[in-house]
Parts: sequence; C-alpha cells; structure tokens
Amino acid sequence: NRTGVVEAILADCKEPEDVVEIARVMVEKSKRALVTRASASHVEALMKVFGSEKLEWNSRARTVIIHDGTPAPRTGGVVGVISAGTADIPAAEEARVIASEMGCETIAVYDVGVAGIHRLIPELQKLKLRNPGAIVVAAGREGTLPTIVSGLVDVPVVGLPVSTGYGAGGGGKAALLSMLQSCSTLAVVNIDAGFVAGAYAARIANMIAAAGAEKKTEEAEQED
Amino acid sequence: NRTGVVEAILADCKEPEDVVEIARVMVEKSKRALVTRASASHVEALMKVFGSEKLEWNSRARTVIIHDGTPAPRTGGVVGVISAGTADIPAAEEARVIASEMGCETIAVYDVGVAGIHRLIPELQKLKLRNPGAIVVAAGREGTLPTIVSGLVDVPVVGLPVSTGYGAGGGGKAALLSMLQSCSTLAVVNIDAGFVAGAYAARIANMIAAAGAEKKTEEAEQED
Amino acid sequence: NRTGVVEAILADCKEPEDVVEIARVMVEKSKRALVTRASASHVEALMKVFGSEKLEWNSRARTVIIHDGTPAPRTGGVVGVISAGTADIPAAEEARVIASEMGCETIAVYDVGVAGIHRLIPELQKLKLRNPGAIVVAAGREGTLPTIVSGLVDVPVVGLPVSTGYGAGGGGKAALLSMLQSCSTLAVVNIDAGFVAGAYAARIANMIAAAGAEKKTEEAEQED
Amino acid sequence: NRTGVVEAILADCKEPEDVVEIARVMVEKSKRALVTRASASHVEALMKVFGSEKLEWNSRARTVIIHDGTPAPRTGGVVGVISAGTADIPAAEEARVIASEMGCETIAVYDVGVAGIHRLIPELQKLKLRNPGAIVVAAGREGTLPTIVSGLVDVPVVGLPVSTGYGAGGGGKAALLSMLQSCSTLAVVNIDAGFVAGAYAARIANMIAAAGAEKKTEEAEQED
Amino acid sequence: NRTGVVEAILADCKEPEDVVEIARVMVEKSKRALVTRASASHVEALMKVFGSEKLEWNSRARTVIIHDGTPAPRTGGVVGVISAGTADIPAAEEARVIASEMGCETIAVYDVGVAGIHRLIPELQKLKLRNPGAIVVAAGREGTLPTIVSGLVDVPVVGLPVSTGYGAGGGGKAALLSMLQSCSTLAVVNIDAGFVAGAYAARIANMIAAAGAEKKTEEAEQED
Amino acid sequence: NRTGVVEAILADCKEPEDVVEIARVMVEKSKRALVTRASASHVEALMKVFGSEKLEWNSRARTVIIHDGTPAPRTGGVVGVISAGTADIPAAEEARVIASEMGCETIAVYDVGVAGIHRLIPELQKLKLRNPGAIVVAAGREGTLPTIVSGLVDVPVVGLPVSTGYGAGGGGKAALLSMLQSCSTLAVVNIDAGFVAGAYAARIANMIAAAGAEKKTEEAEQED
Amino acid sequence: NRTGVVEAILADCKEPEDVVEIARVMVEKSKRALVTRASASHVEALMKVFGSEKLEWNSRARTVIIHDGTPAPRTGGVVGVISAGTADIPAAEEARVIASEMGCETIAVYDVGVAGIHRLIPELQKLKLRNPGAIVVAAGREGTLPTIVSGLVDVPVVGLPVSTGYGAGGGGKAALLSMLQSCSTLAVVNIDAGFVAGAYAARIANMIAAAGAEKKTEEAEQED
Amino acid sequence: NRTGVVEAILADCKEPEDVVEIARVMVEKSKRALVTRASASHVEALMKVFGSEKLEWNSRARTVIIHDGTPAPRTGGVVGVISAGTADIPAAEEARVIASEMGCETIAVYDVGVAGIHRLIPELQKLKLRNPGAIVVAAGREGTLPTIVSGLVDVPVVGLPVSTGYGAGGGGKAALLSMLQSCSTLAVVNIDAGFVAGAYAARIANMIAAAGAEKKTEEAEQED
Ligand SMILES: Nc1ncnc2c1ncn2[C@@H]1O[C@H](COP(=O)(O)O)[C@@H](O)[C@H]1O
Ligand SMILES: Nc1ncnc2c1ncn2[C@@H]1O[C@H](COP(=O)(O)O)[C@@H](O)[C@H]1O
Ligand SMILES: Nc1ncnc2c1ncn2[C@@H]1O[C@H](COP(=O)(O)O)[C@@H](O)[C@H]1O
Ligand SMILES: Nc1ncnc2c1ncn2[C@@H]1O[C@H](COP(=O)(O)O)[C@@H](O)[C@H]1O
Ligand SMILES: [Mg+2]
Ligand SMILES: [Mg+2]
Ligand SMILES: [Mg+2]
Ligand SMILES: [Mg+2]
Ligand SMILES: [Mg+2]
Ligand SMILES: [Mg+2]
Ligand SMILES: [Mg+2]
Ligand SMILES: [Mg+2]
Repeated sequence: NRTGVVEAILADCKEPEDVVEIARVMVEKSKRALVTRASASHVEALMKVFGSEKLEWNSRARTVIIHDGTPAPRTGGVVGVISAGTADIPAAEEARVIASEMGCETIAVYDVGVAGIHRLIPELQKLKLRNPGAIVVAAGREGTLPTIVSGLVDVPVVGLPVSTGYGAGGGGKAALLSMLQSCSTLAVVNIDAGFVAGAYAARIANMIAAAGAEKKTEEAEQED
Repeated sequence: NRTGVVEAILADCKEPEDVVEIARVMVEKSKRALVTRASASHVEALMKVFGSEKLEWNSRARTVIIHDGTPAPRTGGVVGVISAGTADIPAAEEARVIASEMGCETIAVYDVGVAGIHRLIPELQKLKLRNPGAIVVAAGREGTLPTIVSGLVDVPVVGLPVSTGYGAGGGGKAALLSMLQSCSTLAVVNIDAGFVAGAYAARIANMIAAAGAEKKTEEAEQED
Repeated sequence: NRTGVVEAILADCKEPEDVVEIARVMVEKSKRALVTRASASHVEALMKVFGSEKLEWNSRARTVIIHDGTPAPRTGGVVGVISAGTADIPAAEEARVIASEMGCETIAVYDVGVAGIHRLIPELQKLKLRNPGAIVVAAGREGTLPTIVSGLVDVPVVGLPVSTGYGAGGGGKAALLSMLQSCSTLAVVNIDAGFVAGAYAARIANMIAAAGAEKKTEEAEQED
Repeated sequence: NRTGVVEAILADCKEPEDVVEIARVMVEKSKRALVTRASASHVEALMKVFGSEKLEWNSRARTVIIHDGTPAPRTGGVVGVISAGTADIPAAEEARVIASEMGCETIAVYDVGVAGIHRLIPELQKLKLRNPGAIVVAAGREGTLPTIVSGLVDVPVVGLPVSTGYGAGGGGKAALLSMLQSCSTLAVVNIDAGFVAGAYAARIANMIAAAGAEKKTEEAEQED
Repeated sequence: NRTGVVEAILADCKEPEDVVEIARVMVEKSKRALVTRASASHVEALMKVFGSEKLEWNSRARTVIIHDGTPAPRTGGVVGVISAGTADIPAAEEARVIASEMGCETIAVYDVGVAGIHRLIPELQKLKLRNPGAIVVAAGREGTLPTIVSGLVDVPVVGLPVSTGYGAGGGGKAALLSMLQSCSTLAVVNIDAGFVAGAYAARIANMIAAAGAEKKTEEAEQED
Repeated sequence: NRTGVVEAILADCKEPEDVVEIARVMVEKSKRALVTRASASHVEALMKVFGSEKLEWNSRARTVIIHDGTPAPRTGGVVGVISAGTADIPAAEEARVIASEMGCETIAVYDVGVAGIHRLIPELQKLKLRNPGAIVVAAGREGTLPTIVSGLVDVPVVGLPVSTGYGAGGGGKAALLSMLQSCSTLAVVNIDAGFVAGAYAARIANMIAAAGAEKKTEEAEQED
Repeated sequence: NRTGVVEAILADCKEPEDVVEIARVMVEKSKRALVTRASASHVEALMKVFGSEKLEWNSRARTVIIHDGTPAPRTGGVVGVISAGTADIPAAEEARVIASEMGCETIAVYDVGVAGIHRLIPELQKLKLRNPGAIVVAAGREGTLPTIVSGLVDVPVVGLPVSTGYGAGGGGKAALLSMLQSCSTLAVVNIDAGFVAGAYAARIANMIAAAGAEKKTEEAEQED
Repeated sequence: NRTGVVEAILADCKEPEDVVEIARVMVEKSKRALVTRASASHVEALMKVFGSEKLEWNSRARTVIIHDGTPAPRTGGVVGVISAGTADIPAAEEARVIASEMGCETIAVYDVGVAGIHRLIPELQKLKLRNPGAIVVAAGREGTLPTIVSGLVDVPVVGLPVSTGYGAGGGGKAALLSMLQSCSTLAVVNIDAGFVAGAYAARIANMIAAAGAEKKTEEAEQED
C-alpha cells in the first residue's frame, strides 16, 4: 500500500491504557504505529511500555511513532511544509510527521510570513530546487500565506488554516474563509487538520514519485 | 469646517424627486451637493433639473456632484486609493470621490492585486513620493491587499472590504474578517462602505495638511 | 507553462462588449481564450464577433472557448470528474472544461450518487483503469460522495460542494462542512468553485504526467 | 402507559442529594427511576443510598437505573442502535438505555462506519432479521451513516448527530446539517440528544408491537 | 414495495419538457408518477401531454400526480397532518399528498394554532379516534405547535418547520431550532421539507398497518 | 425617584474588596445597596463587613441586598414572575429581586411549563386576581411559555430567555429567537438578563400604580 | 376588550380577493378592520369594494383601516413613537397606527437621531409633558437611539430595530443586538416588527389609563 | 523609524522562559522591549531576570516594558483614549501603553459612558484643547460611545470593541457590529485589539506631529 494513507490512533478522547493497547496490536501487525494528538499522559504511558528507544515523540506535533527499529519505507515523494508564525508550527509539524510516516521526504520552512515576505521568495527558490510534489502551507489569523505561495509556484498547495487569532474571525475562521475565497488555485482542509493536510500532500507526492518510477520500469522493460 | 465630513444625500431608498428637492436646498445653502448610491433614474432626474454642466456624474462610484461652478475648496490633504481588481473599483471610486469632495488630492492605483503583486512595490514607491496622509485599500474575496500594503508603508491604511466572492465567506465576509485578523496595523470600515473609508482617510489627511499649515502660520507669527 | 493554471475571463459582472474585447486580445496573444460563467448575452456577443466555428460553447458548464483552429496542447494528465445528481452537473462540467483546457484528458462519471451507491463501485473500477492523477467529486445537499470515493481510491480527491438544497445547511453549506469534517483524506474548494477544482486537479494530474515524461527523458539521456 | 415516554431525572445541573431525593420519591411511586447525564458524584451518592444491587449504572451512557428488583415491563417493541465510531457510543448508549427502559428489546451495532462500509451491509442484514420497529443511527463529524442506512432499509431511521469533530462544522454541526439535507428519508433529533432519539424510536417500536398485539386480541374476540 | 418511499420527480430546477419526459417513463413503468414543487409552467406542460383526467394537481401542495386511472394502492396506514396557520398549509399539504401516495389515509387538521389553542384539544381527540400511526405537525415562526401536540399524544410526531417569519429567526430558523430544543419527544425534518415529513410519517404508519395485518395472517394460519 | 431603575453593583468581574467598598459608599448615600451576580467569595466578604443582619442573600438569584434596617419603599406596583422549569429559576429570581427592590410586590409562579400546561391556566387565574402590572416569563430550551402566557392575559409580558439547552439552538438561542418570532404580543430582553426583565416590569407596574395614586390625589384636590 | 390587542389582517402572502373577503366579515362583526403590510394591489381591491370614504390608507405604514364611519374607541392611553432617520419611518408608522387603532393617542417624533442628538433633549421634554405610558423607539443601522432615550426617561421604552444598513450587521442585525446589549432598561421586539411594538406599547399605555380611570371610579363609589 | 509600529512580544501562548529570552535579545538590540498579554507567571519570570527597576508593569493593560533606563523617544504625537466602563479599561490601557511606547503623549478619559453622557461633553472639550491627533474609544456591550464621540469631534476616531456582555451579541459582537454600522465616520479594529488600536492611533498622531515639524524645518531652511 505504497501511496495509501497511514492509519493513526487519534489519542484525543482515549484513555492512556486504551492507546497503549491499540498501539501494541498495531505494532505487532504492521511493525509501526502512529499516535496523534497525544497528551503528556499518553506519552508517559507509551514510554513505560515501549521504552524510549522504539519511540519517537514530537512534542510540537503532539505525535508519537512506535516502531521495532526498522525504518519507515521511503517512497521518493517530496513534501514541502511552510508556516507563517510560531503559533502555526504545531499544525505544520503534525502535517510533516504524517507525510514523513507515509514515506515522503519533508522540507520544513517555518520562518516566513506576511511580515517577513521578503524572506519568502528566496526560501521558495530553494524549496523548488528540491522538486516537491506538494506543499502544505499553514497559516492562522488572516491566512494569507497559502494564497501568496500558490501564486508563485506550479506545485499543488494545500491550505491548512490554524486556530489562532481572537475576536471576529478568530480561532481559524478568517483563515479558512480567506483560503476558500483565494484568487490563487488552492485546496483546503479544515482548521488545525494537520493530519489531513499531511496525508493529502503525501498522496499527491507519492503518486508523482510512483509515476516516475513506473516510467523507469516501463522503459527498462521496453529496452529489454 | 475644513476637516469636517462632507454631508451627502444617500439616494438609495429615496425617490428621484425627493433627491432633487434635497439637492436643491443643499446647493442653495452650501453651493455644492453630493449624491451617493445614485441609480440611473436619480441621475436622469438630477440632469433634467440642474443641467449637465453643473453636474459631475461618476458612473462607477455611483456619485453625482452638483455645484454652481465654484470649484471645491482644496485642503492640501493627499489620499491614496488602491484596489486589487476590477470588481473593487466601485467601492474604491466612491471613497475617492468623497475624499476629493472633502478637499483632498486623490491618487488612484487600481491595477495591482495579489496576482500582480510584483507590480505593487513600484506603484507604492511612486505613491509614497506624493506623501499621502492616508491610504484606502479596497479588496474583495480573501481581502489580502490591505495587510500587505500596511506592512510596506508607515501611512495609516484604511481597509475597505468589497462584497465580491461567492460561497463561504463570500459577499465581502472573508475580506472583512481577514482585515480584522490582519497582522499588520490596520483599521477597517464595513463591507462596501466606500463613503466611510473616503471620509475617514480625508479626515486624517486634512489634519496632517492642517498641522503643516498651522506650524507655518505659527512661525510666521513668531517671526514678526 | 505546461502545468500552469489557464487564464480565464470571468464573464459574471462584465458587459458583453468588454468580454468580447478582452477575449480578442487574449486570442491574439495566446491563440485561445476561455470565458467562464457566461450568460446568454455574453455567448451571443462572442458568437457575433468570432463566429460559431471558432467557438466551443458548453451551456451546462457556462463556458466558452475561443480558438483559431489549433487544438489545445495535451499534457498527458488524466482527471476524473464524478457527480452525484443532475443539479451538480454545472459545477462538475465547469471543472471538467477547465481541466481539459489545461491539457488533461477528462473522464466524466455523472450518474452515481448515494441513492445509486451500488452503481458507484463498478464505475470507480472503470475509472481506475484509466489511471487518473486526480478526481474531482461534486456533491450538493449533504455532500457525502467525496468522502465515499476518497475511501475507495488512492488518488487525491478534490471535494467540490454544490449550492443545492433548501432550509438549514442549504445552498451548499452542509456539503462544504461535511467535506471539511470528512473521515477520508480529502481537500476541498469553495461552494460552486468548479474553476478552482478543475484547475487544482489538473495541476496534480499534469505534475504526475510530467514526472513520467521527465523520467523517460532522463533515462533516454543516460542511455546515450 | 405502555407506549408513553419514560420520565427521567436529568442529573446534569442538580446536586447529588437532590437527585437522590427525587429518585427516592420516584421509586416509591413507580418502582423504578431513571437518571441520565449522571456524573461520578451522582453515581456515588445514589450507590450509597440504594446499594449496588438495585442500581444499574451504564458508565458510557451516563445513566443509572434504580429499581426494586422487579424487571422493567416488556412491550415487544424492537429498536436497533447503530453507531459509526468510538466517539459516538455515549450518545448511542443513552438512546439504547432509554429505549430499553421504555420496554423495548434493543440491538446495538457499534462497529460500522463510512470507513468500514463493507461491514455495514451484512450487519444490516442480521439486524433486519430481528424486525426492528425503528433504528437510531448515531454519527459525528460529517454524519453520513444515517443517510446510508436509511437508503438500505424500510424501517424509520432516527438520525442522532454527535458532538465530535473540530474546526468548521465541528461539535456535531456538520453532522446535524447533513442529516437535515439528507437525500434519504430521515428524521433527526438535536446534537447529543440520545434521550430523545431513544424515546422516539421506542414510541414507534411500541406502537408497532401494540398494533400486532391488538389485532391478535381483536381476532381472538371476533372468534368468540 | 408496500412501505417503501414513493419516488418523486422534483420539478424545481427542471425544464417542463424534461419533467414531462421523466413522468412519461415513470407512468409507463409504474402506472403512476408524482411530481413535486411544480410551477405553473410544469403543470401546463403536463396537462397538455397527459390530459386533465389522468392528472391530479394540488396547487397548494404544488404536486401533480399522473396515473392511468388505477387508484393508488392502500396500505391501511393512517397519517395525521396538523398545521398552525394559513402560511403553513403548502408544506403540510405536500406532506399529506406524499403520505397519501404512499398508501396512507390522511387526516388534515389545518385550523389550530397557539392562538386558537382551545380548539386544539377537541380536534386532537377526534384525530386520536382514527388511530393515526404518525402525525406531521407543520409550524412556522416560533414553531410551538409540534411540542404541544407531542406532549398530548402517544403517537410519533414529525416536526415540520415552515419558512415563515421575518427578522431574527425568520425563514423557519426559529421554528427549526425550537423543535430541536423541544421538551417533548419529537423528531424533525428540514425547513419546508414536506416531502420528507410525509414520507417519514407514512413509513411509520405503514409499518404499524403491516404489523397488524401480519398478526392477522399469522393467526389465521395458526388457526388452520 | 419612585419609578426609576434601581442602581446595582454588578459583582461579576469585580474583586470582593471592591464590591464591599462600592457597597459601603452606596449604603451611606442611599441606605440600601443591591449587589447582583455575587459569587460565594463576594457574599463572604460582604457578610464579614456588614454582618448577616443587615444583609439579605438570595443564593438562587445570586443577589445580596444590604440595608440599614429601613425596609425598601413600597410603590404599590405588582409584578408576576413565571418560570417553566427548575433551570429557569435563577434568572426568574434575579428579575423578582430587582422588581421587589424597585418597590413592587412580586408574585412567583415557578412550577408550570409546557409539560405541565394544564396547571398553567388555574395558576394564571390566581395571578390575575392580584392585578399584576406586568409579568416576567422566564423560559429556556425552546422558550414557548411567554408566547402562551401572553395569549391568555391582557397584561404586558416580558419574555426572559434562559441559557439552557445543548446542541443547535442551545444556550438560550432558540428561546430568544422563538420569543422574537412569537405570534403573541411580547417584548423580550437578552438571554439571562433577569436584571433588565425585572427592572422593565417594575417600570411598567410602578407607572400603573402611580397613575392610580395620582388620580386619587387629583380628585382629592378637586374635591377640596 | 378595551386593552386587548387589535386583530389585524396580515396582507403579505394573501391574494387581494382573500383580504377583501376577510375584511368584509370583520367589518360586519366588529365595525372596523385593520389590514397590515398591504401592497398597492391590496389597497386597490379594498378601495373598489369599500370606497375611499370608509377607508384610511397610510402608505408609509402600509396599513389600511376600514370602518363604517364610527370612530375607533378611545382609551385615554398615550403612546410616543420616536425614530432616528427617514428609513425608520415605515416601521415607526406601523407601530403608531396599531397603537392608535387600539385606542391610544399617539405622538410621533420622527426627526431626531444620533447625528441630531442636540434636538433630542427638547423633543423629549415636550413628549414628557404629554405623559406617554410607553415610548416606541425605532432605529436601524447601529440602533443607538432606544438606549439613549431609555436613559433619559422613566417611561417603558420598546426598542424597534429596523432593517436598514448594508454589510456586516446590516438588515437590522446590529440594531437588534445592540438593543439586547443595551445598558439602559429596554425591552425589544423583532426587526421591522412595528405591529408588535405598537401593540405592546398600547397594552402598557391602556393599562395605565385604565388604572387612573378605575381609581376615579372607585373613589367616586366610596364617596357615595 | 519614528512613526513605525513598535514591535511587541505577545506573551499569550509563550512559555515564561521563551518570553524572557526574546526580551533579552530585543533589549540588547533596541534598548527597550514591550511584552503584551502578560500573565502573572510571565511577569514573575521577567522580574527575576531584569529586576524591578528596569521594568514597568501595567497590570490592567497586562503589559510589561523593559528598558535600560533611557526613556522612550518622544514624537510630539498626542493620542486620546476614552472608555465607557470599568470593564473596558484593560483594552483601553493596552492601547494607551502601545501609543505611549510609540512616542505619543496619551490622555486617558475613562469615566464616561452612555449612562454618564452629560459628563462626556465637558471631558471632550478638555481633550480637544490638548490637540489629539487621534482618539481611541473603547466600548463593550452595545458599543455606542465611539459613534457619539466621532459625531462631536473632527479628529479620527478608532473604535475598539471590548468583549463584554453576555447573551446574544455578547463577547463584543454587538459592539463590533454597531461600530461597523455607525452613522458617524469611524474606523474599527477587532474585538479586544487594544494593541492595533493604539498603534493605529499613534501612526496617525505621529504623522501629524511630523508634518508640523517638517514644515518648521522647511521654513527654517527657507529663511536661511
Ligand atoms: N490528528 C488527527 N486528525 C484527524 N484525523 C485523525 C487524526 N489522527 C488520526 N486520525 C484519523 O482518525 C481515525 C482514527 O480514529 P479512532 O478509530 O477513533 O482512533 C483514523 O481514520 C485516522 O486516520
Ligand atoms: N454611500 C453612503 N454610504 C454610507 N453613508 C452615506 C452614504 N452617502 C451618504 N451617507 C450618509 O448618510 C446620511 C444621509 O442619510 P439621509 O439623511 O437618509 O440622506 C448622512 O450622514 C451621510 O453622510
Ligand atoms: N419536494 C421534495 N423535497 C425533497 N426531496 C424531494 C422532493 N421531491 C422529490 N424529492 C426527492 O428528490 C429526488 C429526486 O431528485 P431528481 O432526481 O433531481 O428528480 C428523489 O430522491 C425524490 O425522492
Ligand atoms: N445583573 C446585571 N445585569 C445587567 N446589568 C446589571 C446587573 N447588575 C447591575 N447592572 C447594571 O450595570 C451597571 C453597573 O455597572 P458597574 O458600574 O460596572 O458596576 C449599572 O448600570 C447597573 O444598573
Ligand atoms: Mg497568516
Ligand atoms: Mg483581495
Ligand atoms: Mg450528496
Ligand atoms: Mg460519520
Ligand atoms: Mg407556530
Ligand atoms: Mg420552555
Ligand atoms: Mg440608529
Ligand atoms: Mg458601550
């Protein structure tokens, strides 16, 4: 299931012992398990059972990966993840971890924003050289960044609105609406849905990688 | 009343003959009358009574100015009006006409947008050379432009959301919310409120112009 | 600009003569012009000037393509377009025309829905055999179909909510919200945004097609 | 009052001692009492007074039934309760407990969902064999399941939206709206209103059971 | 398909000739066709082709039934339809026609409301004597009536909010929300969804009728 | 200031010591002070300083009255306060305390509701005999009661929506909207605004009482 | 039924001939009929049947009164009606006509507003001298006026929000919300609900008038 | 960067140690640092590191300024800050601190409101004598005050809605909407956005101050 979406354990409303149990079954079956939206107590319970060596905890993404030492398979897909400000990093990181777990190489660009827009152009140039198959752009408050990025690249951009901002349009609402109203070519996921954004971008990137690989094989076969 | 807001006849829900009557009284009293949101039938009725010579009709702004030949007084205030797309021009023009009627020199920059963002920088440079006291930025759909402009200038920017865009956040809602959530320093008026945006910008520009003039006079007096 | 988004003339708030004029310039420059959201009077005006031979009018998509006889370039990209009911066809067709104009082969499956869900599976099987790079799924009312399709394929699915349905959640609102809440991996565009859905899907499909072609060329070069 | 709705004590905003007191009166009068939305402290207080033998606590449904040993009367009504995911179980269980307390046999099918849609069909077949008079279908996030179930059965389906999901349409809003927009024949209750869903389904099931019983009696009488 | 929901042609967004065509096919196949939300021009077109004898037009319900003379099959189901005011009658009548077409006897009580609440009680008494299997209650503005009716009967009540009322909560919104918040046991359909309300009530009534008939048959068989 | 609205100290966002200080000043000036929305810590602080004898705490209304022993002046105004359920009592009590403090005799009827509608009529009869000048009716969830009461009396009814109910229309929203949509003659205050409801009803009742008194005086004078 | 609310024929969704028919019955029974929300065609139809002499048409209020020459009974109640701008007059007039038809003397003050706030104080002084029992204050856009009036008088004020204003908060929404949030003691009716506002104010005014009259009678009786 | 907006550290979602670290860097670079939305634990951490002498904590504004003893530069700009009630002071103070830190003299008028409207006029007279370049007006609940102030002065008014008020329109919503609907010339910022309001007002005031200074310099130069 090379391009398929990774199955994850959404820890949010589950008791630590339930998460541990589901993870144990999953690791047995698939050698890896991914837990998302993990709180401190989930992490602690997982740590106790699996030990810190077989466990990769990303505190900003709130994800835990459990594995048996075998590295995740690589697809050759490449996913860029851009975010505007510090508050957008958790959602961006969740997207990045999922894309990585789905086999993609990920490239994070976390220090650009509408304020630092002059820094965006050179960073995008560097990103383009790596040939990403898709780019996730996380943005809160007024959610401008995905529109701008999509106007500057040919790569499919996934807009990821982040629940920042107070008052009218706060909590990610203005960000979501402006991405839906964007003049650039843009598709969006729900507010804070880093999981969906990462999985969607990986789906695209993996198909592109696979297309290249298939052609290679095809021609190799034709050459014979 | 040099910096005061111009009084206007909002034609929207008034019968043509009522607008004509109010305008007649106003011209008598103040030598000028400004009609906003004028439909074809309002314009026709005004034309019949005042004649085309004493009447300036701006079809995009939907405004009519009636006067007795005397030009509007000049304050020395300078107001910039920027808009992103064709659909934003009516609101932008309404703002521009009001600012002009309040004595300001107005500078319109109507052909920039997020799509044509590379054209924005040089246009802003030219605008800065004219020392505007305030800049109205009209934008519909996702309403990005005011945020970007305010991040590039020191001048107070008045965000004017425009009722374009369909679907979620359409009709100016996303534009209004993203201006309220803007990371730049921005104040906003209601959707399509060109009148308020123009009057507010003129208020600022006229105060700046007056400040300069007063100092001049003060010093002239001190010199004596 | 092989994978770039096609430029289109949004006829919606433009006078017929303006649309004709812009189209004339565009055809001169690029040999083709695409007009979207064209009303009867726009079509009539375009017909009069360009003649029916150089004009492809899609009355359901409300699009007009004007060309000089040269066929649109082909990219090798493949885009599937699925819709649930009759009322969803205009949005679906708009997406299809845009994807086609961006060089993609398009495959329309318009007769499946939640009611006729038993017909969906065999149709999807047939679609998969054509190796689409992306699938647009248009759905109104409760907007279920994209969720179901995305659960059955590995291809990136673009959810296109359609403004059908009356009462609470009508006008595409329930459709948009359920796509954003979807348990499947899904990205969405705004309500009735057939243009964006088509362009986004074509962007993905064209990248996949290009990836295959590049590999081919690469290897050809390495072989030398 | 065979088909009547059971009276219940909504513990939510009541002090433990008040709930105990009301329950005591109710048990005296009717031999049974049903407490809903009971917190840990309510349960503890009830336990202390009534003892664990006369008390049935359903921690997922958050209900407590107090009785004097006499089993609840049986009506012959049959109610199915289906839910899509783990998060939907509390609402589903509340519905099931109420239907049971109103005299119905209840059949829970809790492990199907849009993801596991292939498992839905055989489960529905089994459910049909038990001749349910009504089926409650609980679903959160995008709320698809009731639409699909109602398209596959002749039995009245009660849609029960559940307050899951974050971001736009979260907290059960998208689920409620898509049930209201459903193309299938569906009636709905409010978000998390497991009590109403269960009572409504039991009302239907009890009328069907009674209709059968009456006919039986009628004919028995006519035979005499 | 005795208790199944009748298939209907939703005329709303269809051209008269399309409706005629679909109706022709349907009559051929099933001897009857039901058209809903029919405008004057739909009715006229249907009249021309089928003639007035084989056509039952209900102008308030906006429905047309076409048949070949054979009366609709009768199930024995009984459905009550109550409405509060004149403005609620179209939605109520749509529900009544659908229930009738699904084989039910229908009993309309259209002249009661919160104002005339003293008239409600005797009308409900009369209705109960007819043993309805379900009652549709249509109500606009503040939507009180379904709550009151459901508090007075044991029969399942389907709340049908109607799009009357201006200002805040107008267009059926307050009615829908108060039915969802109702203290009585109530299930609801969307605003103006007379079709769904009627079909849902008929589903219930037909199951009750069938239950009685089955028992009859069963016993008849046992007696042999 | 006989009919004027009483001044109150809104304790909600104030520190206990600030409330004590403001109360001290107010008692000195006017011999009485009214504190609303008082928490346990506010009450404790007030108790410590003023002693329990000069302090009337209403825990359900969350009000504290401090006085120097002198009873509040009486106006002769009479205000009825009706509520539907237990959850509505705090808002109803706040209204009652304020009306009482404004000099009115108050009559509370707290045990009627749509469920117990048969008990409403005799209670209203008793209330009418006391000649209330205005009636506050508090109701949450679907907010029916004020509509029904106002349909049965000639006295001005003040609808007081209460923030009960979960899901769509919860938190008092459905109650507010249905009161605004009411078919009866009804004026409303905001959700949980017991203070405003009580003060408004007292204003009316005091004017009626004063009208009677004035006539009396007038005639007494004319007789002389 | 001296203080009771007048029964009116809401012409809005009724055919002219139906309105004529209902009016005929009503005039026969009660010697007077009141038609509200009457369009030109309603007025024409009524004029034709009843003749212009027995008909009082108020084109701004959109009301028609039909009578047999007998003047409406007078109660002695006095109602003030204040409005802020020209656009608020239709709603204000509707309120005024209803109050008058319910027996009250009405006093209209239509030329004050927040702009002309200096004119408000003297107008209020004059109004107070007439001893109004209640004051309706109609206001659109930001809806400030009722708050200010209620802060300056002891008389109960009925806030009547008017559907003016475009953009966010337009159509009367901001006006309604600010009246509900008002710091003054204020009760409100729905947007444009002139009928309810007038009837509510008349109810109050009539009770006050009656209170005076009763006292008079009482004392007269005691004197005997 | 005399008129530029001050850079501030938004402490809201940052750990105390992170705020300390960022502040240290900022003080080193620019000799001053401004922290906004600082909680007790932020203040404590800053105090420990910088000492109380170099730290100005404004508990109501929730701001901390850290400096090396050098006073903030003065621009000559003057900003007025008006608020209606006690609850509006935190937002107003935040605005005032920011304007001050941007070099402006600030004048706070915190004890006026719609209730105390008679006190507003003399306070505004005093404020005008100080020649403010802009006035921030903070108001919660129904948000009337900015409208009234802007109707009485020529100076640009920045409306600052405050998140007070419960029920419909609460949390600053009614305040925001009525400022957007205001009949006076007004620009607004988001709910509780004291930072933006203060920075925007300072921008205006500083431009006015600079205009005066420039003229002075110009003339001084011309005189030479
Ligand atoms: N952070 C997340 N956000 C959204 N969906 C998630 C997330 N993590 C896991 N999922 C999906 O939610 C489902 C897991 O739900 P559950 O069975 O409750 O653990 C799977 O379909 C996952 O792919
Ligand atoms: N286009 C406009 N948008 C908003 N307000 C306007 C407009 N034109 C005029 N006004 C203002 O509306 C008021 C005129 O209202 P009226 O007295 O009804 O003509 C004055 O305060 C004008 O300054
Ligand atoms: N008035 C109506 N309201 C809602 N659904 C309807 C109505 N009339 C027909 N339908 C349903 O809508 C579908 C017909 O849609 P269509 O294929 O577009 O004619 C069928 O599933 C009908 O059962
Ligand atoms: N519970 C309450 N609800 C609404 N307004 C109140 C309440 N209690 C006091 N008030 C009013 O709020 C204002 C007191 O505000 P403050 O000066 O902040 O204490 C006065 O105008 C009171 O009449
Ligand atoms: Mg952003
Ligand atoms: Mg824009
Ligand atoms: Mg669908
Ligand atoms: Mg679901
Ligand atoms: Mg009703
Ligand atoms: Mg109620
Ligand atoms: Mg107003
Ligand atoms: Mg205020």
